[in-house]
Amino acid sequence: MNQALSIHPQRLTDSIQKLGQIGRYYDETLGLDGVNRLALTAADGEGRRHVIEQMRARGLTVTIDRIGNVYARRPGRKDSLAPIMMGSHIDSVPTAGMFDGCLGVLGALEIIHTLNDAQRQTTRPMVVAFFTDEEGSRFGTDMLGSAVATGRIPLAEAYALTDRAGRTVERELRTLGFLGDAAEKLTPPHAYLECHIEQGPVLRSRDMEIGVVTGVQSISWHEVTIMGRSAHAGTTPMELRADASVAASRINLRLRELARSGKFGTQMRGTMGAMTPAPGLVNIVPGRMTVTVDLRNPDDQLMRAAEADIIAFYEQVAREEEVQIAWRQTARTDCVSFDSRIQAAIAEAATRRGLSHLSMVSGAGHDAQELAHLTRAGMVFVPGEYNGISHNPREFSTTEQCANGVNVLLDVLLELAEQHD
Amino acid sequence: MNQALSIHPQRLTDSIQKLGQIGRYYDETLGLDGVNRLALTAADGEGRRHVIEQMRARGLTVTIDRIGNVYARRPGRKDSLAPIMMGSHIDSVPTAGMFDGCLGVLGALEIIHTLNDAQRQTTRPMVVAFFTDEEGSRFGTDMLGSAVATGRIPLAEAYALTDRAGRTVERELRTLGFLGDAAEKLTPPHAYLECHIEQGPVLRSRDMEIGVVTGVQSISWHEVTIMGRSAHAGTTPMELRADASVAASRINLRLRELARSGKFGTQMRGTMGAMTPAPGLVNIVPGRMTVTVDLRNPDDQLMRAAEADIIAFYEQVAREEEVQIAWRQTARTDCVSFDSRIQAAIAEAATRRGLSHLSMVSGAGHDAQELAHLTRAGMVFVPGEYNGISHNPREFSTTEQCANGVNVLLDVLLELAEQHD
Repeated sequence: MNQALSIHPQRLTDSIQKLGQIGRYYDETLGLDGVNRLALTAADGEGRRHVIEQMRARGLTVTIDRIGNVYARRPGRKDSLAPIMMGSHIDSVPTAGMFDGCLGVLGALEIIHTLNDAQRQTTRPMVVAFFTDEEGSRFGTDMLGSAVATGRIPLAEAYALTDRAGRTVERELRTLGFLGDAAEKLTPPHAYLECHIEQGPVLRSRDMEIGVVTGVQSISWHEVTIMGRSAHAGTTPMELRADASVAASRINLRLRELARSGKFGTQMRGTMGAMTPAPGLVNIVPGRMTVTVDLRNPDDQLMRAAEADIIAFYEQVAREEEVQIAWRQTARTDCVSFDSRIQAAIAEAATRRGLSHLSMVSGAGHDAQELAHLTRAGMVFVPGEYNGISHNPREFSTTEQCANGVNVLLDVLLELAEQHD
Repeated sequence: MNQALSIHPQRLTDSIQKLGQIGRYYDETLGLDGVNRLALTAADGEGRRHVIEQMRARGLTVTIDRIGNVYARRPGRKDSLAPIMMGSHIDSVPTAGMFDGCLGVLGALEIIHTLNDAQRQTTRPMVVAFFTDEEGSRFGTDMLGSAVATGRIPLAEAYALTDRAGRTVERELRTLGFLGDAAEKLTPPHAYLECHIEQGPVLRSRDMEIGVVTGVQSISWHEVTIMGRSAHAGTTPMELRADASVAASRINLRLRELARSGKFGTQMRGTMGAMTPAPGLVNIVPGRMTVTVDLRNPDDQLMRAAEADIIAFYEQVAREEEVQIAWRQTARTDCVSFDSRIQAAIAEAATRRGLSHLSMVSGAGHDAQELAHLTRAGMVFVPGEYNGISHNPREFSTTEQCANGVNVLLDVLLELAEQHD
């Protein structure tokens, strides 16, 4: 093996900081700047143009596909071989920090920068990708771009998704100038690699530097509509009410109880993130309430049991509160396992660099889980400060933490890039 | 006493139906038409112009004051004596029926119509009034117009109130052409009378035709802001969360428990009508939540105890859920008692007409409680079908139920209109 190359840590941090200025907002609650680059908004467009500029500045050839995914290619010595793809996303939730997704994209670009500086060519070509709307915060479906690229979601279905204002994905792609013409179905790359912040407390609390991601847990989202009876808050006796907000509150508390019970393993999670009462006025018993339920479990069987449990509870609450409850599945993925040889390569690279490492399941969904259906895929996690808080302006990983993860990715990349089959 | 006059029941129903067409909407949940005439919107403006036209058609002289209250006067034989005022409001909650408030205003106009037809003059003049924004649904303060007229709320404070879009009461009055020039402070009338739907199940379930309202219960509104920590729903372990929506749900269930406990009497009511999580997305633990709390009790002492109980619970939840909770009082009225002689007169009039009657406290706030601070005031309730449901398109009282209440009001009015002191 050649002398180990390493990336430039401060240059990576600077590029993360720079992208973090786009879509910046002041979070009054925290007294901190945060990032709001919701998918296919003007801020996301600005972020996209900025990253494409960086890609071109590193000599990469950029193509945009019909769902707005962006691919930037560096030729290989044997350029007809399938490329190694690295990537992630740059869209954000509305109350984000600057690391989620961006570390994967900008880390990959930092790797290209490092290879260019070292005039290092690889046998296989390389592609740096960022995928459209990984977060799902705006159009309700996460991993949208990568799911279309790997064929799980049909293009027409993705185009027709709407935000709360009724604007479609297709319209917003066109408005933003990111309705590309490259075929959306991806030709399988030789491998897919992604570096990401852990978004949880495990690595930091165990003082571990690298997470070897074994897979992604199962995710199940419900949109639940509760129909009670709106009524005057001052005159309607408690026993004559059919209060949709009370029913929603009971489901919310049940979610937590379910997740904490241990009946569904120690890593069960349940969240009610959105609650919208109608009419939503101080002096009216809410007649209708729409809420979301987010369930996660790293075990498919336990997930199915948890889903059955909460659905039975919807029925129980409907009976007891004399309301009607309808729910629909808005997202559902089974557990995904990453390639075991890539997991081993990540662990070995970490060891060679003297970095401690831990095998772990991802709690969040990632583009890599979509790519795993198409090719061998792997993920490297880096620790996060403040208990690994994420989807929050306090999200933070140090320059060293980020650089460690990207260096490990670089090592695995170089190994894969020389594979001939 | 003269031969008893009676109003024209069908004419009253027709006028209620007619006003009910203004601001009409189709309620998809119920499959029924409802009314949305939120204060100082275009629909409210149209309703106002329609009622003013009816006032003029009955020979009344209309004045508009600086908070948009509308007064229509019929001269008396001794025109310098203080008038008898009848009134209510025509603004509505966004999911209303056609009776709340409108019965009081249109009932009073039907009385004028009846007196005109009978060429019956009274010693004292009469005024039919409708007051601005009784519901408080848009600008957050109920009984706004009547509270300004009676001096409880200063005009400048009322003008500065804003809706959710930041538009002020003053701006909206001006835009609508209802920023009148009459002084907002009302010269005390000799008496104030209001006929209203009960908005509760009591009269109907006991088969009573007339409610003699003894007073209005105490009302206390809180706006509660819960600050937790927004975090990733898939990666943040349950034990590391500070979930504002869980804290809100606990407060909501406590409200019901408190109201049902019997510790605060049998007529305690507690409602969480509005719940707004931030950021309000499926995959983010809500970091902030704003909710409203509506407490009602017909006993001032029990109300104070209930308020202390829920405030102590805010503190308990803040500790247990590791969130911060701030609350502010957005409305607070003590119990109000109506004039005992008017109560007796209402009961006697009902008896003379062969109508069963019941003395009862009002569960809702009414303009009459504001006027009670200025003059002798009284209210007549009529029963409502479907358990007296209100603030809902199903709100309904029959032609006979409405006519009975307005006829009793007419009798009491004629008695008071002949009083010389």
